[in-house]
Amino acid sequence: MATARIHLGPTAEAELSDAITRAGGVLVPLDDAEAVVWTAGPDSFPADLPDSVRWVQLSSAGVESWLAAGVVDEKRTWTSAAGAYARTVAQHTIMLLLAGVRHLPEQLEADSWRKDEFDPRVGTLDGATVAIVGCGGIGRALIPFLHAAGAKVLAVTRSGVPVDGAELTLPSDRVGEVWSRADHFVISAPATTETAHLVDESVFAAMKPSSWVVNVARGSLIDTDAAVDAVKNGVIGGVALDVTDPEPLPDHHPLWSLPNAIVTPHVANPASGLSKALAAHIARNVELFCAGEALAARIDTTRGY
Amino acid sequence: MATARIHLGPTAEAELSDAITRAGGVLVPLDDAEAVVWTAGPDSFPADLPDSVRWVQLSSAGVESWLAAGVVDEKRTWTSAAGAYARTVAQHTIMLLLAGVRHLPEQLEADSWRKDEFDPRVGTLDGATVAIVGCGGIGRALIPFLHAAGAKVLAVTRSGVPVDGAELTLPSDRVGEVWSRADHFVISAPATTETAHLVDESVFAAMKPSSWVVNVARGSLIDTDAAVDAVKNGVIGGVALDVTDPEPLPDHHPLWSLPNAIVTPHVANPASGLSKALAAHIARNVELFCAGEALAARIDTTRGY
Repeated sequence: MATARIHLGPTAEAELSDAITRAGGVLVPLDDAEAVVWTAGPDSFPADLPDSVRWVQLSSAGVESWLAAGVVDEKRTWTSAAGAYARTVAQHTIMLLLAGVRHLPEQLEADSWRKDEFDPRVGTLDGATVAIVGCGGIGRALIPFLHAAGAKVLAVTRSGVPVDGAELTLPSDRVGEVWSRADHFVISAPATTETAHLVDESVFAAMKPSSWVVNVARGSLIDTDAAVDAVKNGVIGGVALDVTDPEPLPDHHPLWSLPNAIVTPHVANPASGLSKALAAHIARNVELFCAGEALAARIDTTRGY
Repeated sequence: MATARIHLGPTAEAELSDAITRAGGVLVPLDDAEAVVWTAGPDSFPADLPDSVRWVQLSSAGVESWLAAGVVDEKRTWTSAAGAYARTVAQHTIMLLLAGVRHLPEQLEADSWRKDEFDPRVGTLDGATVAIVGCGGIGRALIPFLHAAGAKVLAVTRSGVPVDGAELTLPSDRVGEVWSRADHFVISAPATTETAHLVDESVFAAMKPSSWVVNVARGSLIDTDAAVDAVKNGVIGGVALDVTDPEPLPDHHPLWSLPNAIVTPHVANPASGLSKALAAHIARNVELFCAGEALAARIDTTRGY
């Protein structure tokens, strides 16, 4: 595989320089570079890039400020970090959903071999339908996990434009149809006035008694008191929440102790993992660049992202 | 989509008949059938299948007895349940691996919002290399999960013939090379005299201090005392075991209480879920049959499975 001459700037964090060199890059000064990996915003970006630079990798998922600054040109390929952070959130999501469906919390509490008791409770996603309510970057990163599990995907998006890999995509004004149609639910919609308490008592009542609801978006999307009642009374199988309302969840809140409620403290996309996620994203693109293949997360200036 | 006329025999379990009809099949007597789904062995199988039967779905993953009985003919397509159970084991495996890497057990024990403490500990599989030691049906079902997570796969198989989706496949006589090369390990090899205590003190010593080891195969593949020492002394990140040695794991064994040890009582492929896994497998094949597409797990009489 070819080696790529890459300039890392304006600073060279060890995690990123290691990722670049492991992926087949050699770190060089800007004037010798074929590619630039830039970890800051557009203000400090070099005004005149050498013509030898054929690719620029940015470190943010959103690139509005770069487009506004007029830095992104047509002379070379520009890539963002779009999707870099969705993958770690999707990992957390599938972990929470499987932990619920397979009753992991009870098994972790056991201090003896309770196979006969747990065996009949361990569920599967194989053949299940999982609704992704608000199927953006995280939802799209989750779909390959669900397919690997043998599950079908029912997606809800604002527009209802079909999502790749979903059996059915509904626009958000038809979200009311999904609650009785899916086996489990992943909430990954933005927090807006319309989505506040999107999942409330009547929604829980429409779900199956075996349904798990995972929230990795914003706490406000679920009515917390209704969730506590639904779990306590066996209306649904359980809730797994990385975000809560209120957040932080207060000490002594019933969600801390209910057996079918899983709470993680907003760590699906841990601050500590941002540079690791970015490093993995950059490494993948350096490998693709070395191999002469199409890069991930190419910025399209006409589309605006 | 077309409807398929399917005979379910010798008995008609509700879970299977529901799966068939939901997938687009209509249950009919044998003489009217285009396809047969058979839930018993070859002894009771109808001696003369109508020529109208173009497909027979069997309910076992292994088909040695069917081939030995000479029942499987060349007049029609025969499919087994190969892979039907690997998918649920792979779900358990990715759940255990993510629960370890993302420190879920500690988070489940918390009864307050300990974000600052947990955030730096939550790891990711994105960019990690996962070795699958004994990469058969379960390992192959696991690979799409690992790809979805952004991980690379290092496979070990008896022959070393490249496994689809693995960056590198090594034959089992080179297994010694993987311990220092991968970040995490999934043990899914058969239990033989050669694989007893495959993972012992020296193997744990070769791993990274952050490595998690997941065993979903047989307890004998790991030296349990060495595992306890490795976890206790921080030699590795942790172990997640669905199988143990001895099994059942005795009460008061240190693995029940070590914070970085996860034990589930051999429930990766729960007995209670066998008919559910089979139902999902059959439903998928009925859908493919209705759509006129190639069926999964076709039996090749010359290959013998």
